[in-house]
Amino acid sequence: MEQRLVFSGNLLSRSANERRDAAWIAARRDDPAGRYLLLQSLEAPVTAGEQPRLVWLSREQLPAGGEEPILLGLETGVPHFVVSLDGVTAGASTAQTPYVDARSVAELLPAEEAAIVAQSRSMTDWHARTRFCSRCGGPTVSLEGGARRQCEACGERHYPRVDPSIIVLVEHDGRALLAGRRGSVPGRSSCVAGFVEPGESIEEAVAREVFEETGVEVEDVNYSYSQPWPFPAVLMIGCRAQARTTEIQVDGVEIESAGWFTRTAVRAALDGTSSELTLPQPVAIAHHLIRDWATESE
Amino acid sequence: MEQRLVFSGNLLSRSANERRDAAWIAARRDDPAGRYLLLQSLEAPVTAGEQPRLVWLSREQLPAGGEEPILLGLETGVPHFVVSLDGVTAGASTAQTPYVDARSVAELLPAEEAAIVAQSRSMTDWHARTRFCSRCGGPTVSLEGGARRQCEACGERHYPRVDPSIIVLVEHDGRALLAGRRGSVPGRSSCVAGFVEPGESIEEAVAREVFEETGVEVEDVNYSYSQPWPFPAVLMIGCRAQARTTEIQVDGVEIESAGWFTRTAVRAALDGTSSELTLPQPVAIAHHLIRDWATESE
Repeated sequence: MEQRLVFSGNLLSRSANERRDAAWIAARRDDPAGRYLLLQSLEAPVTAGEQPRLVWLSREQLPAGGEEPILLGLETGVPHFVVSLDGVTAGASTAQTPYVDARSVAELLPAEEAAIVAQSRSMTDWHARTRFCSRCGGPTVSLEGGARRQCEACGERHYPRVDPSIIVLVEHDGRALLAGRRGSVPGRSSCVAGFVEPGESIEEAVAREVFEETGVEVEDVNYSYSQPWPFPAVLMIGCRAQARTTEIQVDGVEIESAGWFTRTAVRAALDGTSSELTLPQPVAIAHHLIRDWATESE
Repeated sequence: MEQRLVFSGNLLSRSANERRDAAWIAARRDDPAGRYLLLQSLEAPVTAGEQPRLVWLSREQLPAGGEEPILLGLETGVPHFVVSLDGVTAGASTAQTPYVDARSVAELLPAEEAAIVAQSRSMTDWHARTRFCSRCGGPTVSLEGGARRQCEACGERHYPRVDPSIIVLVEHDGRALLAGRRGSVPGRSSCVAGFVEPGESIEEAVAREVFEETGVEVEDVNYSYSQPWPFPAVLMIGCRAQARTTEIQVDGVEIESAGWFTRTAVRAALDGTSSELTLPQPVAIAHHLIRDWATESE
């Protein structure tokens, strides 16, 4: 069952075919109706008041010295761009507008605007980290409205990075396996998670990560739903798996503690009435994987 | 339902925690039992004969001047490495051993060895394309047995890239939507596929790609199974979706033709008795998505 998660629900049309045409991109940049979102240290500007919204600027309102605008997509024909202010030296523009990070945005803004912030943050961060060619070290330039960069020296094409990560609710006999990451608050636990490595299927990554972090062996891996997670550009692939073994041996590297929790204990934590267990907030897919499991009948 | 696909089924344990310890990596390199796979232009050496297998060398048999070995993982404690010969200038070592590409390997070798080639190919290619820091242009070095690289100038850490891509069997009223890529053989059709972009869920990427390439709107996206695809390092995420609209408008950019095919027509193509339709080979996840659909009862 697909489930609406924060950071998905972006309504902009990405125009993946049209954007390959430089003349089409130029026309979008020339469109006087174009809307521009400024990011400052990857934070987004929101209006004050009870129902905050993103602050969009017109082309004329753009501060000088910003980065090359990145095309996010179109909404009823109107092009929407994001511009990073991180290259702007003078205290640019918008001193009176509060800038908020993407996590806070998720709680403040309508879903479709939080999703735009997610896309904007991931794209802006990728551009900042791809100024140079990883193959030859030469400088790269932004093309296709920011949908790719290309090396000016060797011509290598670079595309935005998305890192697939599995995150899994492991269950056994009415209990869920939850783990506490090293360095996190005592009592705070979540699903096992980790990046898919080259040469792995989703199911293999689930089995490897659970075994590495907790010593538990799993089978019957099933996909639940996915979430874009803009820190910096993760595709969270939510799964459910059945444990084949139950003895826990935490790795001590990523995971400091782990245990098997009953639905009753998990529901108490979700209700905020547990003194022993703290769970992730609804912004995270882990919250939904855990809640869906905990609210099922046995 | 999980399904065994070519390039999955790697039996090596990746030792993701242990490999962070430089002393542990050094001990694996010093292990006289260590086994080394050479890659030449990303092709792997196989034995001749009726049941080909990968050719593994001992540490002493390694040619001089190869790249830094990349740790693939352990099997019953024995470390397995891949070494790229692409930096070796003199006609190194193994003139008599045939080198085959990863696609051919998939048809020649046992599943667990084809999977090792997939991992080896993806990792070797990533190292070749990450000699320099994409943030500052400085030189990078291999660490953690090749599981990451780090910039010698700015310290930025770089991790192997895996690009998630959706691939989807779209159905409507007993017919499947299959599309012919531009430049491919006439009559050859497959599932719609494309990379997940930053800020998208799997379900959103499916809807966007199908609409962009064929003009068809979909709903009820369901995950089927996944496959590592080492060209160069793709995670193929196989899905099924229901069409909400049926009128086709091909984009003419990625897709040149598309149509709705009955199970009878698809089964004929799978049996090789169709003169009109050619489908992907079993090495590709698309083959299995199509075959699973075509062999279901109506």
